Amino acid sequence: MRAAIFNEPRSIAAGDRPDPSIVEPTDAIVRVVIACVCGSDLWYYRGETPFEPGPIGHEFVGVVEEVGSDVSAIAKGDLAIAPFAFSDGTCPNCQNGITTACLNGGFFPMNGDGGQGEAVRVPLADTTLVSVPGSGHSDEMMRSLLTLSDVMATGHHAAVCAQVEAGQTVAVVGDGAVGLSGVLAAKRLGAERIIALSRHADRQQLATEFGATDIVAERGDEAIEKVKELTDGVGVDATLECVGTGQAMQTALDIARAGSMVGFVGVPHGVELPIGQMFFRNVGVRGGGAPVRAYLPELLPDVLEGRIDPGKVLDYETDREGIADAYAAMDERRAIKSLVRVGSV
Amino acid sequence: MRAAIFNEPRSIAAGDRPDPSIVEPTDAIVRVVIACVCGSDLWYYRGETPFEPGPIGHEFVGVVEEVGSDVSAIAKGDLAIAPFAFSDGTCPNCQNGITTACLNGGFFPMNGDGGQGEAVRVPLADTTLVSVPGSGHSDEMMRSLLTLSDVMATGHHAAVCAQVEAGQTVAVVGDGAVGLSGVLAAKRLGAERIIALSRHADRQQLATEFGATDIVAERGDEAIEKVKELTDGVGVDATLECVGTGQAMQTALDIARAGSMVGFVGVPHGVELPIGQMFFRNVGVRGGGAPVRAYLPELLPDVLEGRIDPGKVLDYETDREGIADAYAAMDERRAIKSLVRVGSV
Repeated sequence: MRAAIFNEPRSIAAGDRPDPSIVEPTDAIVRVVIACVCGSDLWYYRGETPFEPGPIGHEFVGVVEEVGSDVSAIAKGDLAIAPFAFSDGTCPNCQNGITTACLNGGFFPMNGDGGQGEAVRVPLADTTLVSVPGSGHSDEMMRSLLTLSDVMATGHHAAVCAQVEAGQTVAVVGDGAVGLSGVLAAKRLGAERIIALSRHADRQQLATEFGATDIVAERGDEAIEKVKELTDGVGVDATLECVGTGQAMQTALDIARAGSMVGFVGVPHGVELPIGQMFFRNVGVRGGGAPVRAYLPELLPDVLEGRIDPGKVLDYETDREGIADAYAAMDERRAIKSLVRVGSV
Repeated sequence: MRAAIFNEPRSIAAGDRPDPSIVEPTDAIVRVVIACVCGSDLWYYRGETPFEPGPIGHEFVGVVEEVGSDVSAIAKGDLAIAPFAFSDGTCPNCQNGITTACLNGGFFPMNGDGGQGEAVRVPLADTTLVSVPGSGHSDEMMRSLLTLSDVMATGHHAAVCAQVEAGQTVAVVGDGAVGLSGVLAAKRLGAERIIALSRHADRQQLATEFGATDIVAERGDEAIEKVKELTDGVGVDATLECVGTGQAMQTALDIARAGSMVGFVGVPHGVELPIGQMFFRNVGVRGGGAPVRAYLPELLPDVLEGRIDPGKVLDYETDREGIADAYAAMDERRAIKSLVRVGSV
């Protein structure tokens, strides 16, 4: 089959890989329909985090082609969303809702296949994949379903970790696909005022469409001052840190009001937490890889019933053979997030 | 009047200070009955944190001697608990429950008087002091009331920040007065299993009396291993870090289960937060100075009605003139926490 292969930094291209097949009776083989590129993959693309040469990609929606003998919740022909982590649903960490820490699970492409290839062996299929009811979904709907494999659920995780509550004033640091999803997630949870820290006009527009009420285009100290001005010097009730850099985290901690939480979902790079400041102001942090599988039962109906349309973050597209450009477009900021059309439904 | 004076590290002694008087119409003058020494004062005593020579002490219970013209909720003759921070109760931070970040408040002895002296000018008295109903309280009750000025409320804050819920397995790192109060607080919030990390026999006994179901006497890696054994390798649902050192925090983060919170209330000294580990396991941290005033309406009835008896952490006592020994006893670990008898009711 054809798949996206990481060769070395700045070299990710379509290449040949063996077709996957059922290994464990709990496996399913999914024929990928659409996939996308994750901001976290850019760290590998840019050579800032090591990555083993081989298949890459972990956000995909596809059609179930084959299931192992122990799979019962998923059937051949199902349209399925694959969270970026596979999980057994029964271990204590899964039971506690942290499916990304499943004691028997792992992350794509640890299964051997990348999510941007033609087919993927999905371990623990019953408790990893989520079948999408209905058929003949529009392309717009398919895009939104795809975001449930990672980015929309990650924005939601940031909001959950930040303890967003109805009526609050919320700030979102970062206007990438995750940050924009965070705006949508905060709105969905009832935030009354959402301050999006965004420098790019097109992203500001989408943030506003997703529910941002205020845009702060400044960065660093100026951004902090601006947010403080907007909140009578107090800071915001909940902060979503959706970048992963030291500056973004510091900004998030500086604009968080006393006693509030910063939810962080960007893989930390060069982040040092100022514990003295955190202690003095009772500002906490929590974050990590989103337990997508645990959130899907809650998020999927909102997508299917049209209450949220996170697919709008996918503003660039290419096909399976154009994967190199999907990465380049995001690296060069030509794209917020790249959609890759891999196969057909 | 006589008061406890910090001269230099390892020199805190009784000395003379001017009698306080009403400065602002919102002030009250409290004649101190009993006070105690805080673990955080030991950092100053030991010279590990700078402290300006002058009055010291911030945990006290006393009788209101005089009130300013704008004070209405507190009256002369009231027995009152003084939280270690004074606060106006109306600023946004107070309204959000973080009275330690009051925009118009401060911490004793920023008011000019230390809490271990004969009398204290309490700013913003109406919204700082809490009058204790009834009279003729037993010495045992007085001791428990005194712990509400800081240590019991601080243990409670650790439990709140750790998001302790009924039925959970909770660990408490540190067997000082705060850690022991944390055990009591976790029990009060319904924790089913409480693992106390404690090396000292007398403290283990009090921890057990307060509700600890398991004692781990090991430290560092061995303690982590032991807690993991006790929790089937998963870790605990909520962790209270009640020391403030780097080792204590690392232990806390290592024994916290994926997706859980570490509540920290020891003033951090040499603590570096391992953000990569926190991200990978979705373990968060929140803590700081306890908003005692906000917790008092909830904690006071439990003390008055005998449901909790936090005064037991005060296992050593001296009088106003013996203040030097009150500090030395804690420094030398002869005392968990020192009570200072300053005046009479």
